[in-house]
Amino acid sequence: MNAKELRFKIAKGEFVKPTAGYCKGYVQANMFALPKEYAKSFEEFAKKNSKAMPLLEVVKDGYYTKVLANGANLLNELPLYNIIENGEVVRKVESIEEYYDKDLVFFLIGCSFTFEASLLKNGINLRHVDQGVNVSMYSTNIKLDSVGIWRGDMVVSMRPIAKEKVADACVVTSHFPNMHGTPIQIGYPEMIGIKDINTPDYGDAVEIKKDEIPLFWPCGVTPQNALRDVKLPFAITHAPGHMFVSDKRDEEYYV
Amino acid sequence: MNAKELRFKIAKGEFVKPTAGYCKGYVQANMFALPKEYAKSFEEFAKKNSKAMPLLEVVKDGYYTKVLANGANLLNELPLYNIIENGEVVRKVESIEEYYDKDLVFFLIGCSFTFEASLLKNGINLRHVDQGVNVSMYSTNIKLDSVGIWRGDMVVSMRPIAKEKVADACVVTSHFPNMHGTPIQIGYPEMIGIKDINTPDYGDAVEIKKDEIPLFWPCGVTPQNALRDVKLPFAITHAPGHMFVSDKRDEEYYV
Repeated sequence: MNAKELRFKIAKGEFVKPTAGYCKGYVQANMFALPKEYAKSFEEFAKKNSKAMPLLEVVKDGYYTKVLANGANLLNELPLYNIIENGEVVRKVESIEEYYDKDLVFFLIGCSFTFEASLLKNGINLRHVDQGVNVSMYSTNIKLDSVGIWRGDMVVSMRPIAKEKVADACVVTSHFPNMHGTPIQIGYPEMIGIKDINTPDYGDAVEIKKDEIPLFWPCGVTPQNALRDVKLPFAITHAPGHMFVSDKRDEEYYV
Repeated sequence: MNAKELRFKIAKGEFVKPTAGYCKGYVQANMFALPKEYAKSFEEFAKKNSKAMPLLEVVKDGYYTKVLANGANLLNELPLYNIIENGEVVRKVESIEEYYDKDLVFFLIGCSFTFEASLLKNGINLRHVDQGVNVSMYSTNIKLDSVGIWRGDMVVSMRPIAKEKVADACVVTSHFPNMHGTPIQIGYPEMIGIKDINTPDYGDAVEIKKDEIPLFWPCGVTPQNALRDVKLPFAITHAPGHMFVSDKRDEEYYV
């Protein structure tokens, strides 16, 4: 299934689940939409914290992407959205057509699902993909650099990696700086303020086997976490793990 | 001090200590010398286990290097040697002139000290260099692929790395596959059979601070460990940490 086909299914309401492991080799992106008055400062915030929020595209007029996919509709081509009021998720919806306002600016942010095809190609297994569940994500105590009202802590995604593949996983993902690049933590969740690895803040828990080590990558859910601190009256985001699957190939972002 | 100057001091007996941190940017090498009758099978053994024993040069006639340094004398231009009989170190000496026999073949094997200049340049501090002590080295339970009489377990060197630099250390060292490349273990010494991190089998113990993670690289002391199993009647090696400092620059081995 290519990305266009998947987005077509999504728009028809036939695919409402995490996108990890689908359309291998296509770039996936986080979505974050907010009223214009906050957009400029958010853009600076993202640029200042680009390891967590690498900007791939900003859609300021309308809701069709140009860079990542020509003419994809951001209102219904993601599997699931979070409607956020005063920093809290108040609703999960499959289309945001009824919430759209021409005042909204859409940010598309690099996602680690993009480098998963490359990890698999290098013999590195991914439990959440094997099990068809969402990746585990956690709030951390890693402070973001603030800009204006924007502040908060980084969110990370976690993948258990076979002990002899850990260094390879660092090297492979280092080639994708726009998809968060290398892990921010290896092996010691408590060092970044994660108290219970079995209880992720977003997504699903997965087993970490005896010969595996948990690796933590910065995650594009970070702005959703920041919203909790900032308590913006209104914003829309993708639901964690339910990404925008673009027409771009991962190799275009390989450096 | 360039490599030639250091080797000159060594030959005069004015430098008898570990070479880590000296002649930054020059390739350093392990030395392993053994009678010709065992050399062929050892060469195959090294090639089969090249992550631990990457061969840089083999000197079959005489004792002057050609590739790593033109005309350097392997009999007295290393700071310290181990004389090994039946697998055990029986003597440490500063020159092996009196032990030389034309039957000896010298193997020069890549050393992780070579990539340390690159780690430092990337803002990654090295405690053993800061403290002027030898790097910590450990026997592990990582089995080598055997060839003929040759068998044994891998030796690793350990460096405590600041938690936010661990992935960078993997990426930087991945560019030096002939100097052991990426770490073989990150963070969990017990996973490779190291029981007490504070008691290295070779070299000196160094502190691992609260916000640091121990990284383990394959080490060219591995053949010395193998000798313990194989119990060859006679061999000569460098003393761990007391390397052959060559005239080659690290960038020539950067891939």
